Amino acid sequence: MTNKSQRTHSAILMIACPDQTGLIAAVTHFIRENGGNIIHLEQYVDGESSHFFMRLEWDLQGFNLPMDQFEKCFQESIAAQFDMSYQLYASDERPRLAIFVSKYSHCLFDILSRYQAGEWQVDIPLIISNHPDLEVVAKNVGIDFYLFKINKENKREQEEKQLRLLKSHKIDSIVLARYMQILSDDFVRHYPQQIINIHHSFLPAFSGAKPYNAAYDRGVKIIGATSHYVTAELDAGPIIEQDVVRVSHTDTVEDFIRKGRDLEKVVLSRAIWHHMKRKILVFKNRTIVFV
Amino acid sequence: MTNKSQRTHSAILMIACPDQTGLIAAVTHFIRENGGNIIHLEQYVDGESSHFFMRLEWDLQGFNLPMDQFEKCFQESIAAQFDMSYQLYASDERPRLAIFVSKYSHCLFDILSRYQAGEWQVDIPLIISNHPDLEVVAKNVGIDFYLFKINKENKREQEEKQLRLLKSHKIDSIVLARYMQILSDDFVRHYPQQIINIHHSFLPAFSGAKPYNAAYDRGVKIIGATSHYVTAELDAGPIIEQDVVRVSHTDTVEDFIRKGRDLEKVVLSRAIWHHMKRKILVFKNRTIVFV
Amino acid sequence: MTNKSQRTHSAILMIACPDQTGLIAAVTHFIRENGGNIIHLEQYVDGESSHFFMRLEWDLQGFNLPMDQFEKCFQESIAAQFDMSYQLYASDERPRLAIFVSKYSHCLFDILSRYQAGEWQVDIPLIISNHPDLEVVAKNVGIDFYLFKINKENKREQEEKQLRLLKSHKIDSIVLARYMQILSDDFVRHYPQQIINIHHSFLPAFSGAKPYNAAYDRGVKIIGATSHYVTAELDAGPIIEQDVVRVSHTDTVEDFIRKGRDLEKVVLSRAIWHHMKRKILVFKNRTIVFV
Amino acid sequence: MTNKSQRTHSAILMIACPDQTGLIAAVTHFIRENGGNIIHLEQYVDGESSHFFMRLEWDLQGFNLPMDQFEKCFQESIAAQFDMSYQLYASDERPRLAIFVSKYSHCLFDILSRYQAGEWQVDIPLIISNHPDLEVVAKNVGIDFYLFKINKENKREQEEKQLRLLKSHKIDSIVLARYMQILSDDFVRHYPQQIINIHHSFLPAFSGAKPYNAAYDRGVKIIGATSHYVTAELDAGPIIEQDVVRVSHTDTVEDFIRKGRDLEKVVLSRAIWHHMKRKILVFKNRTIVFV
Repeated sequence: MTNKSQRTHSAILMIACPDQTGLIAAVTHFIRENGGNIIHLEQYVDGESSHFFMRLEWDLQGFNLPMDQFEKCFQESIAAQFDMSYQLYASDERPRLAIFVSKYSHCLFDILSRYQAGEWQVDIPLIISNHPDLEVVAKNVGIDFYLFKINKENKREQEEKQLRLLKSHKIDSIVLARYMQILSDDFVRHYPQQIINIHHSFLPAFSGAKPYNAAYDRGVKIIGATSHYVTAELDAGPIIEQDVVRVSHTDTVEDFIRKGRDLEKVVLSRAIWHHMKRKILVFKNRTIVFV
Repeated sequence: MTNKSQRTHSAILMIACPDQTGLIAAVTHFIRENGGNIIHLEQYVDGESSHFFMRLEWDLQGFNLPMDQFEKCFQESIAAQFDMSYQLYASDERPRLAIFVSKYSHCLFDILSRYQAGEWQVDIPLIISNHPDLEVVAKNVGIDFYLFKINKENKREQEEKQLRLLKSHKIDSIVLARYMQILSDDFVRHYPQQIINIHHSFLPAFSGAKPYNAAYDRGVKIIGATSHYVTAELDAGPIIEQDVVRVSHTDTVEDFIRKGRDLEKVVLSRAIWHHMKRKILVFKNRTIVFV
Repeated sequence: MTNKSQRTHSAILMIACPDQTGLIAAVTHFIRENGGNIIHLEQYVDGESSHFFMRLEWDLQGFNLPMDQFEKCFQESIAAQFDMSYQLYASDERPRLAIFVSKYSHCLFDILSRYQAGEWQVDIPLIISNHPDLEVVAKNVGIDFYLFKINKENKREQEEKQLRLLKSHKIDSIVLARYMQILSDDFVRHYPQQIINIHHSFLPAFSGAKPYNAAYDRGVKIIGATSHYVTAELDAGPIIEQDVVRVSHTDTVEDFIRKGRDLEKVVLSRAIWHHMKRKILVFKNRTIVFV
Repeated sequence: MTNKSQRTHSAILMIACPDQTGLIAAVTHFIRENGGNIIHLEQYVDGESSHFFMRLEWDLQGFNLPMDQFEKCFQESIAAQFDMSYQLYASDERPRLAIFVSKYSHCLFDILSRYQAGEWQVDIPLIISNHPDLEVVAKNVGIDFYLFKINKENKREQEEKQLRLLKSHKIDSIVLARYMQILSDDFVRHYPQQIINIHHSFLPAFSGAKPYNAAYDRGVKIIGATSHYVTAELDAGPIIEQDVVRVSHTDTVEDFIRKGRDLEKVVLSRAIWHHMKRKILVFKNRTIVFV
C-alpha cells in the first residue's frame, strides 16, 4: 500500500450491492490472491436500505490478472455471489470532458486555467455553446468551439446534433459551466450521472431562475453554490458539492452576484475533481463522495 | 469619540426616514451642539426604495440635553423636518428577556451559561414552557419557571395568560429557544420585532417541521441554522443571523441533529447579542445589522 | 454491516503496523471467520513512512470469540505476523473523564450541558480546579469538585495527590477545559494521548499566553481555536480539531475573546467526541481522525 | 444618497486624524454646504490611541466645488483645524496595476479572467516576471510582459530598471501574484501601502518558505492564505484578507497545495478589490477595511 500522492499505475473498483457478511474479506482476498496491493479502501453502508458501497484502489504493479480478464474473473468469483454492480477504471485513463457554456465566462476561465496548468488529468476536446460570446476564449487555448443556437422549434434537432458530436469525440462526461439552457430528458438519458451542473444557490433554496435576486429579497445572511448531477427534474439531481460565503445588508444584488461567481467556479471545479478521480457513487439521489 | 470596548454611559439612536440630502450633517450637528461626542455612526441607504437608516451612539458625559427632554427636542429640531421615525435607548438599560422552551435543552443551557457568567447585560426574570421537562434547569439557576400546557382548545386562553405574565414582568423581548409551539398572530402582534426564533435549517430551505430529515433526504453537503424575528408567517420573518457546518454521506440524521445543535445555540446567541446591543433595524422583511 | 446510528453492541479495533500486502484481507478474514459482521472499516497509509493504520468496528452479535480471548487469539493469528500494535474497545464501555478547570466557565458549562442532556456516553466522576470559583457549578450538577491550589513550591506534591485521586476514580482521560496551569512532564507521562487541551488560538500561531491580544496586535482577519493532546512541549501536541471565525477592525480584544469563547467550547467538545468514540490514532505528532 | 450598486460619478475621501468632538458634523456639513449628497459614510475610532478614521463617498452631481479646488478648500476649512491627513479619489479613476509573477499561474489566470470579463475597473498595462514561463499567458491577453532575471549580483540594478518601467507606465499599485522573489526595502519604499502580496499560509503561522510542508508536518486541520501589504519585514505587513479551508489526515502535501491554490487566488483577488475600491486605511500595521 502506498499514499495517494504517488502517481502509480493503479486500478479503481467501485462496488454497490446489498449488505452481507464477509463482503470486504471476499473482495480484499480476491485482490490479494492476484498479487494486488491495496492503496485505498473506503466503504459505506446505507443504514436504512442495508446497501453496501466500496471504493477500492490497488497498485497494478505485481497484479497478475490482466485488466481485460479482470471483469470476467471478478464477476464469476465474487460479483455474482454477492449480487454486485461495479465499475472498473484505470487511474491513468484520462476522462474526456465537453464543456457547455453560454455568456458567463468565470467558470470556463477557471476550468481552462486548471487545464492549461496541467492540474487535471483530463482531455477537453470541445466546448459547446448556445451563444457566440466565448468563442474567442476557446480559440485562445486551442479548443474547438461549436455554436448551437437553440430555440423551441429547433431544440430537439440541435440536441441530436450535439449528441452525435459528443459521441464522435468519445466524450465521457459533460460540464455545464453556467450553461443557460435546460437539457431535455432525452439528452440527459444519454449521460446518466455524467453531466455536472453548477447552480448559483445553496440548493434546495432558490432553485430555478435568478437565485441571487431571490436570496436578496429573502434577506439571507449567507449565499451558496451547489454542484450536482443533472437529472430529469430541474436543479433536483444528486448534490456533489456545496459551499457558502457571508453577505450582509450592505451587499446589493450585484455584490451577491460578484461574491457568488467565486463560489460557483470553486464549487464546480471541486465537483469535477471528485468526478474525474472516480470518487463518487450515487444512491437514492444522494452522492457518496469518498474523499 | 471612543472605542466600543469601553463601558461608557452612552445613548443609542436608531433612525429611519426617506433619503434626503443633509441628513447626516443635520443629525450629527444636533448631537454636537448639545455637547455629545459620537462613539459610533453607521448608516445605510436602501437603493431601491431610497430609504435611509442610521445608528448613532454618543457619550452622555458632557451631553447637556437630559434624556427625558431629548425626544421632544429632537422631534422638533430634526425628526419632523426629515419625516424620521426613531428609537432612543440608554446603553446601560438592561433588556428584560423571557425564554420560551419545550424539551430540548441545548439552547437554554447556552443562554443560561452566558447569563450566569455575566457575559450578557440582560435580565431574565422568567422561563416559559409547554412541557415540564426543563423546570429543573430553571430551578438550578434560580429563574422562575411557568408551565403552560397548550392544546387546540386552550391555546387562546393560555396565550392570554402568558401575555399577562409577560406584561407583569415588563418583558421587552422573547427568545424562542427551540420552543415547539407556533405562536398565534395575536400573540406575535404584541411583540413586533421583539420575538427571536431559532430554526434548525438554512432558511428558506427546509422550513417547517423535521428540517434535518429533509436535509438528509435531499443529500445536502452543508447544514445550517437560522435566527429570525417571528412574524405571522411561519419561518418567514426577517433573518438576523445564519451559520452552517459541513456534513457528508457518512453522517446520519442523528449526526445532522448533533452537529446542528451546536449551530443552533451559537446562531441564536449571536442574534440575541445583536438584538440586545440595539444593532438591528428591520426594513421590508430584511434586517440591517450594524455590526 | 449496518449504519453508525444504530446503537449496537459492537467492538472497535485500532491497528497500527508497517504497511504490507494482504493486511486488510487478513484482518477482515479473521473477523469474518469468527462470525463478525463489519460495521465500519477505515484505513490510512502514511506515504512517507509506509505505516498502516486501521479502525475496524464489528457487530458482536453472532461473533463467537469472547472478548477476553480475543487479544490472545488475534495476537497469535494476525498481530504477531504483521508486527501490529492494537487496542480493543467495546462500544458500550463508558470512558471516565476528569475535567480540569480554573476560572473561565464557558467550556465547563458546555461540557456539562451535553453531559446532563445525555448527549455523551461518558462518566464524569470529578472536576479538579486550582481555583474555588467554579465549585458552585460542579455542585449544581452533583459532580465532586476538588480544589488543588498550586504554586511553585507545592506543585509536585499537588500533582501527586491529583494522580492518586484520578487513579482511585479509574479516570481514563483528562479534559483541560481552559485550565490555566501547565502540567508537569511527569504528570503528562501518566496519561499519554489521554489529556485533551483547548488552546484559544489557531495553532501554531499565537501559542503561549494571551493569544487574543497577540492576534489583535497582528491585525488578523480570522481567529481560531485548537484542541490537541497534551505533550511535554507546551501547545505543541498533536492537533485533534480546529475551527475559526471572522473578525474585523471593528472588533476589540474583548470582542475577540467573546467570539473566541464560542469557538473554544465547540472545538473542545468536538475533540472530546472523537476521542470518546475511539476515532483517533496518533502518529508522528499528527492525528488520524477517522470521521 | 443612493446605494453602492449604482455607478454614479462620485468622490471618495479617506480621512485620518486624532479623535475630537464634532469631526463628523464638520466634515458632513462641509460636503452638504457644497451641494454634495453623501452615498456612504463609514468611520472607526481606534480606542487605544484615540485615532479617528473615516471614509466618505458623495455624489458629484450637484456638487459645486470643482475637484481641482477641493483640496485647497477642504484643507483650509476643515483639515487644518482637525490636524487631518486625507486622500481624495474620483470613483471613476481606473487604478493602474502591474502584476508580478514567477512560475505559478493560478493567481495570474484568476486576475486576468476578471480583467477580461470587465469585472474590475482597472488598467493592467504590464506583467513583470523573473521567469519566462508565463509570457505566453500575457501574450494571449495582449498585455506587455517584461522578463527581469534576478540574482544576488544584479538585483539592485534590475529593481532600478523595474522601477523606471513602472514609473513610465504610471503604475499606482503592484500585485505580487505568487512572485517568488523578495523585494528590497528600497523598492518597497517607492510604493508604500501599494504592493499587495499573497502568502500561502494563515499568517502569522508558517511565514517564509514552504508553508504547506510546514503545515503538513504540524498536522493542522485547517490551512489558510493571507493577502497583505508588503513592508520591509518579510510576511509581516498589514493583513488585508485571509481565508481558510479544511484539510484532514488523508490530505498529502500535494493536496494542501492543490486546495491552497483555490484559496490563494480568491483571497488575493478580494484584497485587490478592496484596494481598488479605496476601502482600506492602514494604522499601526493593521488594516481598516470599510466593507
